[in-house]
Amino acid sequence: MRRRTFLQTLAATSLIPDAPLLRGASANPPNIVLIYADDMGYGDLHVYGSDLSTPNIDKLAAEGVRFTNWTSANPVCSPSRASLLTGRYPTRVGVPRVLNATDTTGLNQDEQTLADLLKASGYRTQCVGKWHLGVTPEYLPTRRGFDHYFGIPYSNDMTPSVLMRDENIVEQPVKLDTLTQRYTDEAVQFLNQAKGSPFFLYFPHTFPHIPLAASTRFRGKSPHGIYGDAVAELDWSVGEVMKTLHATGAADNTLVLFSSDNGPWYQGSPGKLRGRKGETWEGGVREPFIAWMPGRIPKGRVSGALASMLDVAPTITKLCGAHAPAKAVDGIDVWPLLTGAVKSIDREPLLYFDDNHLQCARWGQWKMHVTRYNRRGYSPAPKEGLKNLLLPRPELYDLDRDPDESYDVADMHPEIVSQILGKVEAAMKTFPEHIQHDWEVTKVTKVSPTAAGALPRSID
Amino acid sequence: MRRRTFLQTLAATSLIPDAPLLRGASANPPNIVLIYADDMGYGDLHVYGSDLSTPNIDKLAAEGVRFTNWTSANPVCSPSRASLLTGRYPTRVGVPRVLNATDTTGLNQDEQTLADLLKASGYRTQCVGKWHLGVTPEYLPTRRGFDHYFGIPYSNDMTPSVLMRDENIVEQPVKLDTLTQRYTDEAVQFLNQAKGSPFFLYFPHTFPHIPLAASTRFRGKSPHGIYGDAVAELDWSVGEVMKTLHATGAADNTLVLFSSDNGPWYQGSPGKLRGRKGETWEGGVREPFIAWMPGRIPKGRVSGALASMLDVAPTITKLCGAHAPAKAVDGIDVWPLLTGAVKSIDREPLLYFDDNHLQCARWGQWKMHVTRYNRRGYSPAPKEGLKNLLLPRPELYDLDRDPDESYDVADMHPEIVSQILGKVEAAMKTFPEHIQHDWEVTKVTKVSPTAAGALPRSID
Repeated sequence: MRRRTFLQTLAATSLIPDAPLLRGASANPPNIVLIYADDMGYGDLHVYGSDLSTPNIDKLAAEGVRFTNWTSANPVCSPSRASLLTGRYPTRVGVPRVLNATDTTGLNQDEQTLADLLKASGYRTQCVGKWHLGVTPEYLPTRRGFDHYFGIPYSNDMTPSVLMRDENIVEQPVKLDTLTQRYTDEAVQFLNQAKGSPFFLYFPHTFPHIPLAASTRFRGKSPHGIYGDAVAELDWSVGEVMKTLHATGAADNTLVLFSSDNGPWYQGSPGKLRGRKGETWEGGVREPFIAWMPGRIPKGRVSGALASMLDVAPTITKLCGAHAPAKAVDGIDVWPLLTGAVKSIDREPLLYFDDNHLQCARWGQWKMHVTRYNRRGYSPAPKEGLKNLLLPRPELYDLDRDPDESYDVADMHPEIVSQILGKVEAAMKTFPEHIQHDWEVTKVTKVSPTAAGALPRSID
Repeated sequence: MRRRTFLQTLAATSLIPDAPLLRGASANPPNIVLIYADDMGYGDLHVYGSDLSTPNIDKLAAEGVRFTNWTSANPVCSPSRASLLTGRYPTRVGVPRVLNATDTTGLNQDEQTLADLLKASGYRTQCVGKWHLGVTPEYLPTRRGFDHYFGIPYSNDMTPSVLMRDENIVEQPVKLDTLTQRYTDEAVQFLNQAKGSPFFLYFPHTFPHIPLAASTRFRGKSPHGIYGDAVAELDWSVGEVMKTLHATGAADNTLVLFSSDNGPWYQGSPGKLRGRKGETWEGGVREPFIAWMPGRIPKGRVSGALASMLDVAPTITKLCGAHAPAKAVDGIDVWPLLTGAVKSIDREPLLYFDDNHLQCARWGQWKMHVTRYNRRGYSPAPKEGLKNLLLPRPELYDLDRDPDESYDVADMHPEIVSQILGKVEAAMKTFPEHIQHDWEVTKVTKVSPTAAGALPRSID
């Protein structure tokens, strides 16, 4: 079992068995507000260079830190969220792909979520918004660490379209136009009532995932169409949450995080990055990420440090003095990056999977692709199986020089390719057997990276 | 039959029946050098914002005009070139899709190429490089207006890999490493010998299409890998051509054009534009375009005027005093845009087809998509047929506000959608019957653009 440094440290220094005692280690455990957009691109926020108007989120960035190299664990929805809430790769936790409305599986029952761990530490926990980690009762938020839930259990393009409160359907079909307003009312109400205990508000929005909608107040107002309207309403919602935190006095001890699950789909902008939702090019996985905590996180910083959505759960559990998950996490504690105490943290390669197949690995400035699965918005899924999707040799991109992954430099840096392959090889041994098997199949194609000019075509 | 304004003017004013007399109208007909890269992206030249080093092409732009809204007629190779050499849509001239090495068709025999028209006007004509408009003898460059040919008849990833001189295979397989050098030697030799008559050098390069290669002098020199090496050698080649033009004294009366056939494929950068080769997003069709002619084209201009590769043949025939093609062209004379005499030219929508299906139309700042065909590098072609690829309603993008086509504003501007649809409807009537039939099928899906929030999903 692999454990990350912070876990080893924790294991060595704290043998305190139960949560309340652990919590006692933190004098005044902070509140956590985690706002998560759906399919918002790296280039969709004004503060990230967009023409869309997002004044409230921009303000959050101006008063905190925003990251330019924060990456999702997966380019699609369910796996990305599974990693956010567990700190573990989606391939480890039973959610390697997007869940459908009819699926009866979800986040493995033996996984602990961030909500489980905070709740065990005495937190009030609330989930408002899109869940998408299992729809049968045993997988709903109320069984995964949240005191209460209000939202849609999967994507808004899936049917039946239902809105749930806790474990009951309260609206069918869902009135999408007013959904962000109602989510926000619910979140504000929770924040107003959250007294006496620290709280964790997990607020995963439904938009700008399609079908897009916005309430009368925002509809038709953005020059960028309904996508702009939906983003403007989401920005308004962030403003309402912040207003409430200030009004209740909670703001002084609350960590607010804003991000999105994966790159843009039919609409939305990945900025200058290559690729979109469903692709492991940076446009599919690079996310806006903003952290705000007055007095703890300095104002107005921009960090280019590499970090991952896998890091959110380990960082928050540590910060809050909660137990770390019993199982080894793949993320690391990146609190020093949020505060600016360190500029970067050396780490092992981040792995990106499509379903159970390894597609690529990010190691510092390098991105190595070994397979490619062309799963895009309009395209039918390839039917030919894995072997059609392998690259004839690994490709290597230097994100420092070439942020949009335009120029494969594997043949210039065979030693980097070898180093990454070695690290990936070691990491893959920690995965379940069927994933290792897929990796063995992939390896067959790992011909010499000196085969310059080889055609990166499908292999038959 | 539709004819463009310049044709109507020409028809009304010049009833001179034969080419030499027409040429007489131009005292000193200019030489034409048309250099065409293969799969080079809008973002691959230094002067277009790339980190790649392209000093010779940058110099060409500094001494001439470069366009930021010049678009190919098609996002793939053969159709794009068919339009370049005829001024007509690929769907009209028998090359609606990429030709394979085994295809026995090509550019329709009853089409006149730019080379045909210039040759009839007394030009010496030479094609050096990749042809890709038919490989059986009757379709080769030597039968389509070129005195001589040296190059590969189709893409360098197609087999058998052959190099031809005129109508004979002179090398098999082709030594790719030295190909750009040999092309350049051939072009320089032609320029050195071209005395006494005006000349037309059509120089469509093989690179940076994959498989990539470069000669020893350039191999391994670019920090951006072999793509950078290949582009550097191509840039060197442009420099050699320019040196020769200056040395022979031809430079004073030569129009030099530089562009590429379509967006980048596996490697290469579309800049910040959405999409790549094979897609009718701007990243698939927007091209670098540089025009150089000392004394006629002012130095150092950058033009944002909309223009098309369809315009090249009409503009050159007019400039050279050659006959216009007998058939109505779809391009227009854009010489006033090259000289800066006018800032823009109002024109009917430019149509983009995938094979024979209309995909989208560009009208000024607007781009309307009606179907989508996801034909990308790594993806197998969709097998479900046309009906799977239709959008449920037209999408509209405002390229002035949203150059990377991120935000559909069809529901905000239904009147623009209606206007474009009306113009497209009229234009489609000029196409052959089977293309009109496909358009009729497409129309079935053209539901009200006010159906905001409709899912742009495939239709069953």
